[in-house]
Amino acid sequence: MTQHDTVSSPSDHPHENPLEDVHNVMAPEQTEALEQLYTDFAAQHLSPLWTQLGEVMTDVPRSKAIPFVWRWNDLLPLAARSGDLVPVGRGGERRAIALANPGLKGRPYATPTIWAAIQYLGPRETAPEHRHSQNAFRFVVEGEGVWTVVNGDPVAMRRGDFLLTPGWNFHGHHNETDHPMAWIDGLDVPLAEHLDVGFFEFGTERVTDYSTPDVSRAERLWANPGLRPLSGLDSQVNSPIHAYRWEYTDRALTAQLELEAEGFPATVEQGHAGIRYSNPTNGGDVMSTLRAEFHRLREGTQTASRREVGSSVWQVFDGRGEIVVADQVWQVDRGDLVVVPSWEPWELRAETQLDLFRFSDAPVIERLAFDRTFVAGRER
Amino acid sequence: MTQHDTVSSPSDHPHENPLEDVHNVMAPEQTEALEQLYTDFAAQHLSPLWTQLGEVMTDVPRSKAIPFVWRWNDLLPLAARSGDLVPVGRGGERRAIALANPGLKGRPYATPTIWAAIQYLGPRETAPEHRHSQNAFRFVVEGEGVWTVVNGDPVAMRRGDFLLTPGWNFHGHHNETDHPMAWIDGLDVPLAEHLDVGFFEFGTERVTDYSTPDVSRAERLWANPGLRPLSGLDSQVNSPIHAYRWEYTDRALTAQLELEAEGFPATVEQGHAGIRYSNPTNGGDVMSTLRAEFHRLREGTQTASRREVGSSVWQVFDGRGEIVVADQVWQVDRGDLVVVPSWEPWELRAETQLDLFRFSDAPVIERLAFDRTFVAGRER
Amino acid sequence: MTQHDTVSSPSDHPHENPLEDVHNVMAPEQTEALEQLYTDFAAQHLSPLWTQLGEVMTDVPRSKAIPFVWRWNDLLPLAARSGDLVPVGRGGERRAIALANPGLKGRPYATPTIWAAIQYLGPRETAPEHRHSQNAFRFVVEGEGVWTVVNGDPVAMRRGDFLLTPGWNFHGHHNETDHPMAWIDGLDVPLAEHLDVGFFEFGTERVTDYSTPDVSRAERLWANPGLRPLSGLDSQVNSPIHAYRWEYTDRALTAQLELEAEGFPATVEQGHAGIRYSNPTNGGDVMSTLRAEFHRLREGTQTASRREVGSSVWQVFDGRGEIVVADQVWQVDRGDLVVVPSWEPWELRAETQLDLFRFSDAPVIERLAFDRTFVAGRER
Amino acid sequence: MTQHDTVSSPSDHPHENPLEDVHNVMAPEQTEALEQLYTDFAAQHLSPLWTQLGEVMTDVPRSKAIPFVWRWNDLLPLAARSGDLVPVGRGGERRAIALANPGLKGRPYATPTIWAAIQYLGPRETAPEHRHSQNAFRFVVEGEGVWTVVNGDPVAMRRGDFLLTPGWNFHGHHNETDHPMAWIDGLDVPLAEHLDVGFFEFGTERVTDYSTPDVSRAERLWANPGLRPLSGLDSQVNSPIHAYRWEYTDRALTAQLELEAEGFPATVEQGHAGIRYSNPTNGGDVMSTLRAEFHRLREGTQTASRREVGSSVWQVFDGRGEIVVADQVWQVDRGDLVVVPSWEPWELRAETQLDLFRFSDAPVIERLAFDRTFVAGRER
Repeated sequence: MTQHDTVSSPSDHPHENPLEDVHNVMAPEQTEALEQLYTDFAAQHLSPLWTQLGEVMTDVPRSKAIPFVWRWNDLLPLAARSGDLVPVGRGGERRAIALANPGLKGRPYATPTIWAAIQYLGPRETAPEHRHSQNAFRFVVEGEGVWTVVNGDPVAMRRGDFLLTPGWNFHGHHNETDHPMAWIDGLDVPLAEHLDVGFFEFGTERVTDYSTPDVSRAERLWANPGLRPLSGLDSQVNSPIHAYRWEYTDRALTAQLELEAEGFPATVEQGHAGIRYSNPTNGGDVMSTLRAEFHRLREGTQTASRREVGSSVWQVFDGRGEIVVADQVWQVDRGDLVVVPSWEPWELRAETQLDLFRFSDAPVIERLAFDRTFVAGRER
Repeated sequence: MTQHDTVSSPSDHPHENPLEDVHNVMAPEQTEALEQLYTDFAAQHLSPLWTQLGEVMTDVPRSKAIPFVWRWNDLLPLAARSGDLVPVGRGGERRAIALANPGLKGRPYATPTIWAAIQYLGPRETAPEHRHSQNAFRFVVEGEGVWTVVNGDPVAMRRGDFLLTPGWNFHGHHNETDHPMAWIDGLDVPLAEHLDVGFFEFGTERVTDYSTPDVSRAERLWANPGLRPLSGLDSQVNSPIHAYRWEYTDRALTAQLELEAEGFPATVEQGHAGIRYSNPTNGGDVMSTLRAEFHRLREGTQTASRREVGSSVWQVFDGRGEIVVADQVWQVDRGDLVVVPSWEPWELRAETQLDLFRFSDAPVIERLAFDRTFVAGRER
Repeated sequence: MTQHDTVSSPSDHPHENPLEDVHNVMAPEQTEALEQLYTDFAAQHLSPLWTQLGEVMTDVPRSKAIPFVWRWNDLLPLAARSGDLVPVGRGGERRAIALANPGLKGRPYATPTIWAAIQYLGPRETAPEHRHSQNAFRFVVEGEGVWTVVNGDPVAMRRGDFLLTPGWNFHGHHNETDHPMAWIDGLDVPLAEHLDVGFFEFGTERVTDYSTPDVSRAERLWANPGLRPLSGLDSQVNSPIHAYRWEYTDRALTAQLELEAEGFPATVEQGHAGIRYSNPTNGGDVMSTLRAEFHRLREGTQTASRREVGSSVWQVFDGRGEIVVADQVWQVDRGDLVVVPSWEPWELRAETQLDLFRFSDAPVIERLAFDRTFVAGRER
Repeated sequence: MTQHDTVSSPSDHPHENPLEDVHNVMAPEQTEALEQLYTDFAAQHLSPLWTQLGEVMTDVPRSKAIPFVWRWNDLLPLAARSGDLVPVGRGGERRAIALANPGLKGRPYATPTIWAAIQYLGPRETAPEHRHSQNAFRFVVEGEGVWTVVNGDPVAMRRGDFLLTPGWNFHGHHNETDHPMAWIDGLDVPLAEHLDVGFFEFGTERVTDYSTPDVSRAERLWANPGLRPLSGLDSQVNSPIHAYRWEYTDRALTAQLELEAEGFPATVEQGHAGIRYSNPTNGGDVMSTLRAEFHRLREGTQTASRREVGSSVWQVFDGRGEIVVADQVWQVDRGDLVVVPSWEPWELRAETQLDLFRFSDAPVIERLAFDRTFVAGRER
């Protein structure tokens, strides 16, 4: 919590803004003079605050986005049908199908800051190269066989891997197999759109390097724990580790639960392990606008209920359990995606061991000093 | 320019996105199967990227906000009429009339991130105390007699002063004179709304301290050049100098132009002096989301043409000249306000010595590493 | 306290290291074989730890420097005699007479990190220009009439002013009056010597600018509270404010004591005001190796007893009182200088209102994460 | 180069300070009055600058430490003889034999800031626990079988491993085998002594945990590339990775040379790979005062000649070649140690593939902004 000295006690009815119901002494009788005033305001492109305070300010964050779930079992067949009907190529650029939060008026956005999609690449297909200011990552819940080529560096994509294409890096994808592959993409597209910061350039129609190494050059140079190349000592805005392999994530989570069992502090809370993907040049988030984490819950674990300023998306990687957001309880399974809007309370319940990938706009919220967290049972 | 390795050459037609005109190989013949696919997408709250890439991504920032001017001579009489017709008080909170950018569909916002308004307080009136996450400042283009009370500290408001009420500080205003006073407010309301970060609390109906000191406690403790109180050595998110007085701003600008005349580097460019209001605890911007600057142009000076990622608002403080934004040329005078959307080229021309206050969302853009600048004639 | 998780309770006998008295199981009988081993060590330029642990490590810092006082009434006449006998000029460079801590074996150093001296410039004399890596400042306890020229910028020196010549800036001094002037210099000479970091270059034999402005260019550009020139937005290692004028220091201290009297938190402790001179580009210390502060005690105030890692020097600016260091109690008056070695307890007692200038190596200690503080009565 | 705007051209005769030979106009005829003045200075513990400027300031760094080599073939037998003659235990604490630079007047220091030693632990021996402010590391050039227990966490020591015991962590060692083991220790003891910052406490006489895991808890939690535990998100002064294993170092160096061979930028210079051990919480050095690196030269490679402010120690890990410092050329082999004092030019020549460990005081020099580097052939 950066700029705030108290924690608001969350209200019970999150979508009713009490500021709208306050007696407003500034809503005087509607005289003709007042009506004329408001007409003159409009003519001059002016707008009074006092008639709409409750609209522009709320007692707590009340997102238009709503808590929602998308099922992998629904997404994948639709993606496959796209594979049959829509060629991938220049202009449309990507066979990506975005989660459109029902609260956001049909806009193709998971939350006000996050674009999330399932992307699908058929056998032997290539998605052409381009670059944009928007930061992007991919996370692979199943499958393999695609290489994403980031500024000329081919990066293999396999189940459990977390892969970066930070802003303004050229990138394309190619499938080197005879089977299709699908994964999820996360980008800061709606944030970039709202802030008017986006640049875009086309690259080559084919990827620049069709080789298929197991390990990318980015990893060979950077994915060595605590070791920085002497040729790369400056702090970098985005993590130069463009591929975070499942092998390491799994090992880190396993170690945390083992250490906890051995009696040493290592987990977030009892039975709940977690890692944050980080930038080795400064210890910060992988990109300036997106945070990514991986969580593992021991079978039977139930987390505390938390509220956080900022929005996030969860994807189940393995296991079964429940994700609770506000008054919704969703039974979830591999690949299912759940959106948590800002300040909505959430908790996790693990029926089996439960592995989850999470991404959020937390770096935005923290860099702008709007962060607050409320953990039930830990009120001060 | 943080994350980008090249500077895009600006296009000539800023509001036509070439990405929309590219031949799209992913727009296949509209078969029945395809229509059914799109229907099924909609039913599942999904949205294909390939049909709307040009809508969510653009070659350069193409803001919905448009360049626009508001005239002080229009604003002030409308504010005065509000003073006659609308009482100030709890519920509406402030007699503030916001600049509503014609491009932003009637929303009361100057730009996608900035709320800007003229606020008006009649003789002996009080605007009640409240606090909110949104960061706010006031700038006084004329008049005096109001004190804004920030967390209990009464701060006098006078022509040329720049005054802070950072997020979550209680604040109210009271007019201690028999004449009305008007000034401008700047807040990050639309940013906070988009990010879903806003909290709000009412305070007392009257201000907590009606005393009228010339100098606030914040200034007595903090407005001493290069001197920090030993009781305040930590870095603070927001500047603890809550009042930046005209006397110092004027002195700093005068010195820059004199130094330039004496042959020493001191100005931004020939004939163009400028200061940034800063946080003495870390040298950064006064608040996490808003930058404020003051510019002075020697008579006859014309600035280079610049494009910047991020939006800003100018207010003429003194003198006459022209503000040019894209293909608009506005003759401006004291109090006039001009909005510059992201990436629109702008320049200033001083008919007389020209003093201008400017505020922008630059800290947001820079903290998120989206900053780019293009200065005509300085292409690399 | 950066790297340490506990606060050592200070021992009563600061100059006896208990580590030397511990029974050492590694001091075996002096056999011939052992003597031969030690001889062979020496021949190979090797040295066993186990015979000298107590010499190289101590339970708490036990400085060779001792607490000491130098009286202004002794220093000034000696400096004046130097003025008669020794010309100022190239080769010796400065008529500066250094405080030589009696504990430091005749080395001309106040503490292991700090060189402090009285400098004396006769009527119409010039001290030639040079530059060095070592950081330097001047503080003026009385008099005026000398300008120090820092990288070509003439800076007037007057009672109460604190003036910087950061490392590698050319500087010389000239006295424009018919009376002599004396002041104190502080440098990091012994630190630079120990670290082997010093570079030195001669400049012109005369200063490059003999003009005598009241206000330097550095001040005109930078000594405006909270205002940064748009031409100087990068963080700088050293403060660009090269002159901190007494007028502002006095005003800041006065305000703190007044605010305390009015019931607001502003002072270090009851009756004890203080400011730190700071770098406006980042809020940090004025230079990378030296901290400077000014303290004012209300008449009758006695501070808490403190121990700090790192050494400091106090100079009385005005008033009378006592400075207590370890078991020494010195009655002090205007101009007197007192050295506090690392970890020695100190306190101040004000007979009248007592104004003191202080400088220290605290930035070194903190940047290297060796800082600890112990305040009597505030043990946790 | 932080504070300096030019690079001095190194002089040819590094140990002759031209400042001592300048005609000194401040060395007047030795009159009786002058002698009396100097006598009176001494009586008052004062020391004139003008008679000793060349002693306290030099044109470039001229370290008292000299370039020197210690041979592993000399060190190891002497350490073994100590093992026979001197028991390890409380009081002497460690069977460590320090490199005593011949230039440093018999003090047991490799350079003015660095203590370096060979430490030797016999079969089944234990070195008791203690802690101190001084930062320490171990590097293993050969052997295994000892565990160092850092704040209760047993850390295996094996050839090629780099191991941390940052300041104020309790630590002891125990040998679990029937053979002795030797390694090198590096500490900031002389820096801490000079700065008067050292605290010391005895711990238990035996280590607190005699278990012998292959992997320490620190590694399990932290040595995962780019992954931070959610329970450890704050920046830490010292790296929490207490063991940097040879496996990763070797892999990183191998990758750099391979990438270079494949045509991608990865090395420091042609044929010269290198990594810096870093703190994953902020990307900085492993400890606040000591930098550690590992270098690998392809057979036949000769590095550029470099001068750097600050001192360093090299140890050959594998291969054969030459280390050149100033006018010394040493043929070196496994385990040999070479000291490079501040600003002495050095270069490496690889007869075979040459692997070298290096440590230095560079974090001290950089944090205090005294850093300068001169690379022959890259003058600007």
